[in-house]
Amino acid sequence: MSEVLHYVGLDVGGTSMKAGVVDDTGRVHSNVNLPTEAEKGQDHGLATMCACIRLAARQAGFTLADIASIGVATPGTMDLAAGLMLEPPNMRSWRNVPVRQHIAAEFGLPTAFQNDANAAALGEYWAGAGKGVRSLVFYTLGTGVGGGIIIHGRVLEGEHSHGAELGHVKIEMTNPRLCGCGKRGCLEAYASATAVVQRAQESLAAGTVSALAHRSPTGTELTARDVFAAADAGDALALRLVDETAYYLAVGASNAMHTIDPEMVVFGGGMIAAGEPFLRLIRQHISALAFPVPAEKTQIRFAQLGSDAGFIGAAACARALKCSSDS
Amino acid sequence: MSEVLHYVGLDVGGTSMKAGVVDDTGRVHSNVNLPTEAEKGQDHGLATMCACIRLAARQAGFTLADIASIGVATPGTMDLAAGLMLEPPNMRSWRNVPVRQHIAAEFGLPTAFQNDANAAALGEYWAGAGKGVRSLVFYTLGTGVGGGIIIHGRVLEGEHSHGAELGHVKIEMTNPRLCGCGKRGCLEAYASATAVVQRAQESLAAGTVSALAHRSPTGTELTARDVFAAADAGDALALRLVDETAYYLAVGASNAMHTIDPEMVVFGGGMIAAGEPFLRLIRQHISALAFPVPAEKTQIRFAQLGSDAGFIGAAACARALKCSSDS
Repeated sequence: MSEVLHYVGLDVGGTSMKAGVVDDTGRVHSNVNLPTEAEKGQDHGLATMCACIRLAARQAGFTLADIASIGVATPGTMDLAAGLMLEPPNMRSWRNVPVRQHIAAEFGLPTAFQNDANAAALGEYWAGAGKGVRSLVFYTLGTGVGGGIIIHGRVLEGEHSHGAELGHVKIEMTNPRLCGCGKRGCLEAYASATAVVQRAQESLAAGTVSALAHRSPTGTELTARDVFAAADAGDALALRLVDETAYYLAVGASNAMHTIDPEMVVFGGGMIAAGEPFLRLIRQHISALAFPVPAEKTQIRFAQLGSDAGFIGAAACARALKCSSDS
Repeated sequence: MSEVLHYVGLDVGGTSMKAGVVDDTGRVHSNVNLPTEAEKGQDHGLATMCACIRLAARQAGFTLADIASIGVATPGTMDLAAGLMLEPPNMRSWRNVPVRQHIAAEFGLPTAFQNDANAAALGEYWAGAGKGVRSLVFYTLGTGVGGGIIIHGRVLEGEHSHGAELGHVKIEMTNPRLCGCGKRGCLEAYASATAVVQRAQESLAAGTVSALAHRSPTGTELTARDVFAAADAGDALALRLVDETAYYLAVGASNAMHTIDPEMVVFGGGMIAAGEPFLRLIRQHISALAFPVPAEKTQIRFAQLGSDAGFIGAAACARALKCSSDS
């Protein structure tokens, strides 16, 4: 096939959704977003997804007839084989939402469906930090810790749509922190932005002297960004919290390295705004934790696509669908 | 191809090696073993490997001309792409042993090379507990804890021959036990047979009353088998040690389930002689630790091929080689 094909990728989040037209080379032709308004219910949500896909095509100067296939990424637990969102955490009233079927029927186009972190991992693999590598393990660091694993171009979905739930690998048994998932000791309970703030609050409550206390005496108004900023300014508590966060992420990453042994580990999500010093700390801890060969050879990088990784990856899922149906 | 092809699989261990002829249906036509005599050096070791392969063919009533390909599994760190054993832990003087090249040259046959735990995983997948599943995660519980991951018929080797080093996933940060690998907090440091004995010794040294003390007052002569036997007889300390071992394995398994999400988790190796009560404990802890869907749907089983899994899996690697060169 000589003609360059175009795909629409859509990344649905709890507060907003992003979509864009992406071509076979990974070039982005449009980039639009709409509010999800999850509280208006799932039928409204499905209608907004369709509107966002139309808007992305129009903004790129295309009609839907120019689009080869569509990819949709959504958060939370899902049944990938059935194309369903099950009980998305930030969309309380939504249940068993038939995303793939609805969108495929609406547009009459092949439609791929994927977990949002898996899609972002594929986006970074295809068009971002992982361009050219054979395999990567991806972490997205935000309110929670999401994961995605790509091996030789394919998303590791798992047999029950639970592949790469890397925020819920247990790293502590003795004093396991309670995780948002209801279990204890998960990586997410240590290394998410929420966990960084919680650990700061605990230290302030215990009387640790810190510039963070001037910002918010009991820590109730702190954000992870405040903690990283205070570390940049040399605050001892903040420096310790940042180093511990890097250590926890290194434990998670070296566990993934001793399981998947990827060519690259990529960290994305809001927390990587902390910049290169944070990445250097993660690398140092991985060097100490992992076996010598993977410690030396595995590339440890920050993501490059920012919040566009999800829709670009969703487009990559659409593209994979097209490739496999062609062959 | 209508003719049934035959393969030789060889599984090299620190004290002995096993080989056998296996056909396309997974049927074993011979099963032989020779002492490794590692202390005689690697050239002697390579010669013994060749002798063991010849013996396996002869015992099955074949000449090497009847064999389609050969598979060899070895322990320790290796460079799978180069076909080298690097520094096998129980063969102290061996270094960079060119196993695949030596055997391929000796017999003039396509030769596959694989890590022993990966090979055992493929053996169970092909002809043992995992027959018919799409993917499995395998643990071998002996002096150490080995791992193997099979996804859709392929061994997850990793990019640097370090895939499925599942004994070296870190599960504890606060009081991490020292592992034989030199790192701390690894699953192997908690759940290997060696670790079971060590934990028993620590409890006896701390004065815990137990029938194990009658067997060996300071625990120096205890084996993991003694601990499991004492648990069967109702000894409180032994029961606690066995339950804790099951818990540690469940932590490892649920971490693998949240990473790979396989259809089945298989436990093999000497420790599964502990029997069904031990498996039930592992299942109970996994149910509590893993997410609801994988906890409910993932099959948790004991291996079926015993110490033959390695050479049968090595034959499966030989067979995969033949299949891929045919296509």
